[in-house]
Amino acid sequence: MHVVVNAATSADGKLSSRRREQIAISGEADFERVDRLRAYSDAVVVGVGTVLADDPHLTVKDESLCDERLERGEPKQPARVVVDSKGRTPTDAAVLDDAATTYVCLSEAAPVGSRMDLVDHAELVTAGNDRVDLLRAFAALEEQGLERIMVEGGGELIFSLFEAGLVDELRLFVGPKVIGGRDAPTLADGEGFVEEFPLLHLEDLERLDDGALLRWTVED
Amino acid sequence: MHVVVNAATSADGKLSSRRREQIAISGEADFERVDRLRAYSDAVVVGVGTVLADDPHLTVKDESLCDERLERGEPKQPARVVVDSKGRTPTDAAVLDDAATTYVCLSEAAPVGSRMDLVDHAELVTAGNDRVDLLRAFAALEEQGLERIMVEGGGELIFSLFEAGLVDELRLFVGPKVIGGRDAPTLADGEGFVEEFPLLHLEDLERLDDGALLRWTVED
Repeated sequence: MHVVVNAATSADGKLSSRRREQIAISGEADFERVDRLRAYSDAVVVGVGTVLADDPHLTVKDESLCDERLERGEPKQPARVVVDSKGRTPTDAAVLDDAATTYVCLSEAAPVGSRMDLVDHAELVTAGNDRVDLLRAFAALEEQGLERIMVEGGGELIFSLFEAGLVDELRLFVGPKVIGGRDAPTLADGEGFVEEFPLLHLEDLERLDDGALLRWTVED
Repeated sequence: MHVVVNAATSADGKLSSRRREQIAISGEADFERVDRLRAYSDAVVVGVGTVLADDPHLTVKDESLCDERLERGEPKQPARVVVDSKGRTPTDAAVLDDAATTYVCLSEAAPVGSRMDLVDHAELVTAGNDRVDLLRAFAALEEQGLERIMVEGGGELIFSLFEAGLVDELRLFVGPKVIGGRDAPTLADGEGFVEEFPLLHLEDLERLDDGALLRWTVED
């Protein structure tokens, strides 16, 4: 399994404003890059916070990229995965429509009623007591043949994945805006590291519009 | 007056960990770049939070750069400025030693006792009622001949300077570490912008070790 975290932040590391409203950080060139990355992934993963805030569809938009997937013998769309410890994904979320297979990763703490609602719309994976055990959940996804994983946020999930040692690669667009806000979501939130910090090795750096696109691998 | 904000953040936009402990983000090459930028500044500015957390000296370390300043008819060291609404700078702070002239910018809310302690160690500038009025304080600094201003943090001051429209340039090293933490200080904290966001224009981008050095100008 190879896990790539992909995100766009403001110059000050924010994913959105303190109101959790999506802010356009990148432009058309970056949208195309992200669409292409999705098209070469087996699954696109987000945390439930992102579903609740943005209601993303998480599908490949460019039909020619979908056709190429079919030619490669892959499903037309990559699978979608929501990490959702308490089963809060609304049944009318865009990510639960029939455009692609969707997995919802739950913990034992997800109420039975939520499970019964979600089971009609998604494949359910249960791992962990109060919070999703990401190592076990990702192992279960791998058993389903999902090898190339793209994570699109938010900051709580991204931190947890780094904490679990599951991230292989970080692709980050640092964009030409200042969002500010001590309560605005950042690329990696959670409790934060205090003694040992994941180290990165820069593989590629390029200018994209007025921002920078960085591709880092995570050191062991 | 030309105001440059210079900072190093982790890949996720943090200036330090949630414990406010300084984390080595950049290496020797970046230290030299920062020292040189200080040497070509008339004043180096920080917020009192940075003084309390890190007790920085804020002087140019390379003696040959100091000699060049003297040859140019400048003081051996750039002035140091602390933005300190409530007068919390300790009198034994490194920034108050006699290596350079220091200005402490206070608001009217700074207690008389603090002023009396600080006046023996620094030039005091008072502007604003509860918080330092940055426009007035920076105008007062300009009247003292301080034209080339370098701001080194922290995130509260940097946000306030963007909010006041005082920033001309942002130089950012984005380093190869993940710090994480929803409570860790970021490049721009404060209340945060919610509708209009300062826009940046990328002037230069270069790789530095395993990170990226970005130089942006702020659009009007």
